[in-house]
Amino acid sequence: MSSSFGTLYKVSTFGESHGIGVGAVVDGCPANLELSEADIQPQLDRRRPGQSDLTTPRQEADQVSILSGVENGKTLGTPIGLLVRNKDQRPGDYGEMSRVPRPSHADYTYQVKYGNRAASGGGRSSARETIGRVAAGAIAEKILKQYWDIEIVAWVSSIGNVRCGAVDPEQLTREQVDAHITRCPDPAVAEQMAETVREVRDAADSIGGVVSCVCRKVPAGWGEPVFDKLEAGLAQAMLSLPATKGFEIGSGFAGTELLGSQHNDLFVRKGEQLGTLTNHAGGVLGGISSGESILFRTAFKPVATIGKSQQTVDFDGKPAVMEAKGRHDPCVVPRAVPIVETMTALVLVDLALRQQARQL
Amino acid sequence: MSSSFGTLYKVSTFGESHGIGVGAVVDGCPANLELSEADIQPQLDRRRPGQSDLTTPRQEADQVSILSGVENGKTLGTPIGLLVRNKDQRPGDYGEMSRVPRPSHADYTYQVKYGNRAASGGGRSSARETIGRVAAGAIAEKILKQYWDIEIVAWVSSIGNVRCGAVDPEQLTREQVDAHITRCPDPAVAEQMAETVREVRDAADSIGGVVSCVCRKVPAGWGEPVFDKLEAGLAQAMLSLPATKGFEIGSGFAGTELLGSQHNDLFVRKGEQLGTLTNHAGGVLGGISSGESILFRTAFKPVATIGKSQQTVDFDGKPAVMEAKGRHDPCVVPRAVPIVETMTALVLVDLALRQQARQL
Amino acid sequence: MSSSFGTLYKVSTFGESHGIGVGAVVDGCPANLELSEADIQPQLDRRRPGQSDLTTPRQEADQVSILSGVENGKTLGTPIGLLVRNKDQRPGDYGEMSRVPRPSHADYTYQVKYGNRAASGGGRSSARETIGRVAAGAIAEKILKQYWDIEIVAWVSSIGNVRCGAVDPEQLTREQVDAHITRCPDPAVAEQMAETVREVRDAADSIGGVVSCVCRKVPAGWGEPVFDKLEAGLAQAMLSLPATKGFEIGSGFAGTELLGSQHNDLFVRKGEQLGTLTNHAGGVLGGISSGESILFRTAFKPVATIGKSQQTVDFDGKPAVMEAKGRHDPCVVPRAVPIVETMTALVLVDLALRQQARQL
Amino acid sequence: MSSSFGTLYKVSTFGESHGIGVGAVVDGCPANLELSEADIQPQLDRRRPGQSDLTTPRQEADQVSILSGVENGKTLGTPIGLLVRNKDQRPGDYGEMSRVPRPSHADYTYQVKYGNRAASGGGRSSARETIGRVAAGAIAEKILKQYWDIEIVAWVSSIGNVRCGAVDPEQLTREQVDAHITRCPDPAVAEQMAETVREVRDAADSIGGVVSCVCRKVPAGWGEPVFDKLEAGLAQAMLSLPATKGFEIGSGFAGTELLGSQHNDLFVRKGEQLGTLTNHAGGVLGGISSGESILFRTAFKPVATIGKSQQTVDFDGKPAVMEAKGRHDPCVVPRAVPIVETMTALVLVDLALRQQARQL
Repeated sequence: MSSSFGTLYKVSTFGESHGIGVGAVVDGCPANLELSEADIQPQLDRRRPGQSDLTTPRQEADQVSILSGVENGKTLGTPIGLLVRNKDQRPGDYGEMSRVPRPSHADYTYQVKYGNRAASGGGRSSARETIGRVAAGAIAEKILKQYWDIEIVAWVSSIGNVRCGAVDPEQLTREQVDAHITRCPDPAVAEQMAETVREVRDAADSIGGVVSCVCRKVPAGWGEPVFDKLEAGLAQAMLSLPATKGFEIGSGFAGTELLGSQHNDLFVRKGEQLGTLTNHAGGVLGGISSGESILFRTAFKPVATIGKSQQTVDFDGKPAVMEAKGRHDPCVVPRAVPIVETMTALVLVDLALRQQARQL
Repeated sequence: MSSSFGTLYKVSTFGESHGIGVGAVVDGCPANLELSEADIQPQLDRRRPGQSDLTTPRQEADQVSILSGVENGKTLGTPIGLLVRNKDQRPGDYGEMSRVPRPSHADYTYQVKYGNRAASGGGRSSARETIGRVAAGAIAEKILKQYWDIEIVAWVSSIGNVRCGAVDPEQLTREQVDAHITRCPDPAVAEQMAETVREVRDAADSIGGVVSCVCRKVPAGWGEPVFDKLEAGLAQAMLSLPATKGFEIGSGFAGTELLGSQHNDLFVRKGEQLGTLTNHAGGVLGGISSGESILFRTAFKPVATIGKSQQTVDFDGKPAVMEAKGRHDPCVVPRAVPIVETMTALVLVDLALRQQARQL
Repeated sequence: MSSSFGTLYKVSTFGESHGIGVGAVVDGCPANLELSEADIQPQLDRRRPGQSDLTTPRQEADQVSILSGVENGKTLGTPIGLLVRNKDQRPGDYGEMSRVPRPSHADYTYQVKYGNRAASGGGRSSARETIGRVAAGAIAEKILKQYWDIEIVAWVSSIGNVRCGAVDPEQLTREQVDAHITRCPDPAVAEQMAETVREVRDAADSIGGVVSCVCRKVPAGWGEPVFDKLEAGLAQAMLSLPATKGFEIGSGFAGTELLGSQHNDLFVRKGEQLGTLTNHAGGVLGGISSGESILFRTAFKPVATIGKSQQTVDFDGKPAVMEAKGRHDPCVVPRAVPIVETMTALVLVDLALRQQARQL
Repeated sequence: MSSSFGTLYKVSTFGESHGIGVGAVVDGCPANLELSEADIQPQLDRRRPGQSDLTTPRQEADQVSILSGVENGKTLGTPIGLLVRNKDQRPGDYGEMSRVPRPSHADYTYQVKYGNRAASGGGRSSARETIGRVAAGAIAEKILKQYWDIEIVAWVSSIGNVRCGAVDPEQLTREQVDAHITRCPDPAVAEQMAETVREVRDAADSIGGVVSCVCRKVPAGWGEPVFDKLEAGLAQAMLSLPATKGFEIGSGFAGTELLGSQHNDLFVRKGEQLGTLTNHAGGVLGGISSGESILFRTAFKPVATIGKSQQTVDFDGKPAVMEAKGRHDPCVVPRAVPIVETMTALVLVDLALRQQARQL
């Protein structure tokens, strides 16, 4: 396990689906920031299941408590403990799963790595693990907003092969994103996506998608070459999320087909600073923010847990049929939107503080 | 700057194009490994410029010296200092660049971040920086080979829109990859790629491409959820390389269009262990190696430095024309192959040692 | 704040005197270790105030809850969240302290560093902060006992100028240590120490002391030169505890007066291994455990908070009188014994896992 | 091995007595600092052997080369590679040592830990290893001087039982320290110390001593509770040096005998800030610098390598006699003075940058 992230804004997450709760410790939050649970709860609410008929109907309130690090409504500069209690603790009702590893899930690799078959251990590979990140990242978002006015907005840009049309990342708001249950801000496409998810759900199947994200007003100069380049941090962050299979920034894979003369972003004066005419770079040059908006995309595979019958083998290699009981998310990407945003904030705030250390 | 990588196999790189040299310190290499410069030089040779008419004609011998950590042909368990001397140290002959930031290069962001315009600083963002990684990674490859018989093979899977045909990643060898100067193992396509690069070169332009990589025989159980999942480490590693814009593992972005019932890899018995019928996962489940081959792809943008005239601005925002002098790589991907391999080895060896720490 | 400790067995602590509670997250605990609150509570009980008339009469039950990482009585290999709730949360009743920094306490430096005067922030510099360490260290002790049969025993070797007589560190038990409320295992001296503390207490004053510690059966080979030598880790650990002013291992400061020919520990065969005739080294050679018992001492200054009137200044530099209200520990060293032990365990278990990573 | 130190000013050292050389990579040095070898060489010169008849007559020039990170006399903000070439590389002439572990040296524990008997590996535990630290620390000293006008002065406060008399740490200069070959600034005692060392030397023996150190003008606010408290960092740093057995700050062990009312440092106004009447704390409160001078002492044991005949055993446990050939330092403390200073600078500069990160 490596459940710590960050150099100066350090987050340590904990918790499984079972047990008392999930949460995080945030070490390195600046002192004297106004902070209460109300700053954190909204992103947890956007993350939680049961928000619409597109997600699992499990109802989890996911109320966060601040355990430490805040007094009289302000941060002390000491570690902030964050806890979200599990509502429903039933270790042991994962009968079948303890015998048969779910295909494309982590049951088998957790067994090999940790030598146990505990569903809760597998539970650490579930989406519930992300609660600690979201809570810690919501604080990071507040810091970024307060000190640099940074805006981070993610949205669903595709589900299956249904693609969001043109979106202006310079103007997009979270309100626009949340206007539809799919979190696709293109009204013409959003309902088509929802229909796709419903069809998949009714077929006891699942489907993947892509989440895009923009970070606006990030000052030039953030990112720590060579190993902690801004895009390297984002790539690690995104690929550490459950169910992710790909990351691209700026022109991404499509950019590999361009000529340098097409791809290069020519500099222009923008006020007191330089900017670029185009932004194929996605807001980073040499691993350092350029002042242009940071733009990246993350690929989420279809959810592994499906109701459809699957012919697989048990832990001993004997043939077995797996049919997930209950109702699961047929598509994770709408709920992934706040997770991508808060995880992005964790990357940015750490690089911000590291850059701040240079201002001697 | 953050030029250290790894938790137990820790690499610290240093060096610019100018100055005495480039290199790395490797801390955490197991003791009693047979090691000499001859183990490291081959990957440096595959990385160096001037290997064919497709790359920059600059000739750099890039001979590595082991400064410490090895005695009587064996590692001591102490830090291994590695140095490659620069042949040609001419600080100051980057006249134009000190006035005009090269479009899509790091000149501007280094200026903002470090407050200097030294071409050598920008030189840390150049491909030459990767020498330290390659040298350190070549040692990592030897460890992985010796203790686990792991094979890492990367190849060029596309240049521009010319795509490599079917390749069997289970069988592919470095010899096959090196058979053509493009490092594309598909003979039918390789020459077409080369032709594309030559056209681009003759037009004083550049072009991007994709490098694929396979890691065979990685044991199940490597990877440290949640933040140091195997794919998160690879993503960070790849996006920390110069000119990279994307990473995908297994099904990647294409997998987002599949249904769960199509995408899930069903388990089967393979000898004493479980394996999967398909490998959309790309060899990882829940951030941990599954025992199947690890498969991923990295996107490289077209090289930023081109001879073509570009209408841009200088550091003060005044209009300026940039035309890179001299000859530069029109396409970086053939030389990126050993860089991808060795960087991959750095990720794997660190996770290997971390998993070893569990074998109480 | 830097509230994380360890490379592979990583502990992140949190919590002030006020707020909901104090605790820790342990990341890197081996899987399948039998663990419950009952393994942790005893050291917390030995640490808590109110155990005798020598300590503050504040009664704190300090009951620990395991929030995560354990299922069916066994560790999962995932992070273990640990929480001890604060009984008595009264932010704001530290009136005087918010105006006048307590002499030799951290009020002033916290104000300068964090820009706040919150008593809870200062509370992070109080002994209560150590609860998270003790809880995390109690788990470390269990690991060390189970896998290597290691025994860690600390005791009070002096209070003021009253010194414990000869103790055989090879035989000493925690029961012997706990036999007297001073935790001095020398019955002839213990009562004299207690009397000293009572006199000091009745004078509204405080007094310091020294805690000694032995670690038995630590295998040869632990410690990571050069910066993470075993004694360097212990020294950091001890000097990170509240109120500590000194650390010495083996012969310590007294050894500086010896000749090499007196100080050198000559090797002898001990079973299958080498041992030494004497142990001036204190169980370490070159930063690595030698197989001999590890022996070190930690100096604790007199408690800063005293009832006696002190002529000092307020935060604005104006003359002020400070008289601590309530009852405080007149001598911290009896309660420091389990803190030293568990902190030692945190150092050892991390080095144990790092050495394990070498056993390829 | 763990040869990296620091969070933001990160130093990675390498090198044995044999091999090409010893050195370090400094990652995190601020950009645009004027720097050349001339800034580093003086402390290396003060460290090197052969400075007087009190030290080993081995002559080592120990000339440092800057490999990278500096251009046109200024730091680039990129990693600074530092190399000191070994003059005299004779692996293999340590015949006896390869059969018999030197008492109180690391030969035995390196054998157990790394599984090899290479004298060079043991050489990593020798004083030569400190060259990389001194070089990296000399740069740190320059930063501390330039940005905060900090002065670090260490001196020999005892050799054997010969003790330096009263010294005013607020006024002491390196020139005063270097005025005598013992580096004891008390002229009345220095020659007596030298005589002691000569007697010991002539008896083919060795002797220990204590090095004191003062850091003046360190601003209040440095230090990162709870694990990276300023004194915890210093304690780790000092105990990571070869031959050290103890550390104390401020009142240290002697302070344990005082009452709180004697020990507490009462606050007074000092200009715009608060200061204290006394400084039993040694310049730290709650792990954070108070603005008062930081004062600490480090115990060095007698050098383990002595010419006197020692009755010990070989690696197989068979009786053997060890008599070190050649001439060795009879007393390490005069040469330890610059090592203590530079190691202190490494601790301070890292905490300085970490505090700087808070100045949002």
